[in-house]
Amino acid sequence: MNETSATISPLAERLVAGDKRALARAITLIESDDPAGWDLVREIFPRTGKARITGFTGPPGVGKSTLIGALTAELRKLDREIAVLSIDPSSPFTQGALLGDRIRLTEHFLDSGVFIRSMASRGALGGLSEAALQAALVMDASGKDDVLIETVGVGQGEIDIVDHADTIVLALMPGSGDSIQALKAGVMEIPDIIVINKADHPMTDTMVREVRGALSLAQTPDDWRVPILRTEAARGEGIAELAVKVAEHREFIEAEGTLAERRARNLRSEVLGIATARLRRRLEAAIKDDPGVAGLLDRVVSRELDPASAAAELLEGEIDD
Amino acid sequence: MNETSATISPLAERLVAGDKRALARAITLIESDDPAGWDLVREIFPRTGKARITGFTGPPGVGKSTLIGALTAELRKLDREIAVLSIDPSSPFTQGALLGDRIRLTEHFLDSGVFIRSMASRGALGGLSEAALQAALVMDASGKDDVLIETVGVGQGEIDIVDHADTIVLALMPGSGDSIQALKAGVMEIPDIIVINKADHPMTDTMVREVRGALSLAQTPDDWRVPILRTEAARGEGIAELAVKVAEHREFIEAEGTLAERRARNLRSEVLGIATARLRRRLEAAIKDDPGVAGLLDRVVSRELDPASAAAELLEGEIDD
Repeated sequence: MNETSATISPLAERLVAGDKRALARAITLIESDDPAGWDLVREIFPRTGKARITGFTGPPGVGKSTLIGALTAELRKLDREIAVLSIDPSSPFTQGALLGDRIRLTEHFLDSGVFIRSMASRGALGGLSEAALQAALVMDASGKDDVLIETVGVGQGEIDIVDHADTIVLALMPGSGDSIQALKAGVMEIPDIIVINKADHPMTDTMVREVRGALSLAQTPDDWRVPILRTEAARGEGIAELAVKVAEHREFIEAEGTLAERRARNLRSEVLGIATARLRRRLEAAIKDDPGVAGLLDRVVSRELDPASAAAELLEGEIDD
Repeated sequence: MNETSATISPLAERLVAGDKRALARAITLIESDDPAGWDLVREIFPRTGKARITGFTGPPGVGKSTLIGALTAELRKLDREIAVLSIDPSSPFTQGALLGDRIRLTEHFLDSGVFIRSMASRGALGGLSEAALQAALVMDASGKDDVLIETVGVGQGEIDIVDHADTIVLALMPGSGDSIQALKAGVMEIPDIIVINKADHPMTDTMVREVRGALSLAQTPDDWRVPILRTEAARGEGIAELAVKVAEHREFIEAEGTLAERRARNLRSEVLGIATARLRRRLEAAIKDDPGVAGLLDRVVSRELDPASAAAELLEGEIDD
């Protein structure tokens, strides 16, 4: 088509053609911080932007993985190609422990229209989120119709993967009192769709009322009315409606022009986030390897030099190397 | 005593002498990012390290402010001087809305042995945490025996103020299901003390059992056994025991040598956090003011240039100015 695609690498070519093994290989390169991974993302980036990106957030234990598994089954009925990316360290996807009633998720591993990948490591959250964003991009470029991202709703690293989503689904369950309080207090962002999973619980009606109360206090940025859905993901209940609402939200933001706005804002914050994470790693390396920097920190620990002055000295000495 | 104290500024002198108005002024300087605030922290930093720093974290609505108010009253009985710093945007301290049963907190405003200050602004969390750390340092230098820091338990900015504490208290209440799940899943750090507030609730026993269960799964770094306390902060119930446990934990880490270790690690991460936050602000300024950078981001939005390559270009061009 143009010069760029004429010189595309064999791996990128296979990836954009939808080859599943090329996708797996690409993500491994990204995950291991191989320069070839970054080169690949550079090559395929012009092919991104087509997939519908849906982020699932919420406290551990509410059944986000089961919900994503059930939604995947639903979307497969419509013949949509799905990629799932989990960066929730407590997720059964991430832990590879697909046992008990979770076994149903593994059925998707045999479906060529579904690609599931998890990334997790506590501690290195900056680098992890950065890698996850790149992984979402290659999933998008590989021709998936939907990229479903699972993340735990606590903690905001330097880059929040959920910020990359077009539609954000908050999953709760009866008993998610802390999340309700966080919504009410304005400490938690208002999502696009709220799902009350495990809705066979007798307290579900109370929970729906509380969520509605929390939403009524919130300022929503646009005219989208946040739906509150009841699901029993383990039995597939309410999942068809979730699929409809995800599609409706996407259509809504597309029609309003907010999809383009959201993506522009997200891409800008991605650039800033990646740059900041790299700077931080550079500083961390300097702290480890440079005896001068180690000495600087020792002076802080002995209370000779205050942290802010030490930070200023660190920035002067270490950045323009 | 030495050269440094001979040339100490009048404000620093008043601050270390325990002058309450000097402390208020110092924090205002820090909050408004006045260079005089940074100078002051530099001057007083050698006088820090004496106060007992206790961090209170937990979801909104569990009554952290009331708990801190009640603990303050308890510690005043022992004639300890107290400073309270709230950086929880949903806190009644922060909102200045000390109404209803919260009025009891205001009684401390009239007590010259108590200094209460809040800082809050959503969005600028990097800068806020940085300022909060400096505020905690001046509180410490002003001769307070206890610095009590209130923070909401969700979200981890670049610098987490709780990391500055010697003792971390997690406040929960019956119904804090999400936090229990987060503890169980290992997504939330294990605190030093857990308080179940609003313990007059009939579900308190269940809650205590669940917390105990979550703790039994966790790996604790040292031999400290995390106590689970029941309080009704609004009535002062269980607060004497909380005061005892805070003191015991402090003695424990002092005896084990982990206090020094903790503080050294915290100070190191503070330096890194401040440096990273400053770099991020520098980048943000470049993005706003530099037409070249704006053009770079436009190329990302139009999917010509991938985010990681844009970040690399940004770092090359903007850091060594």
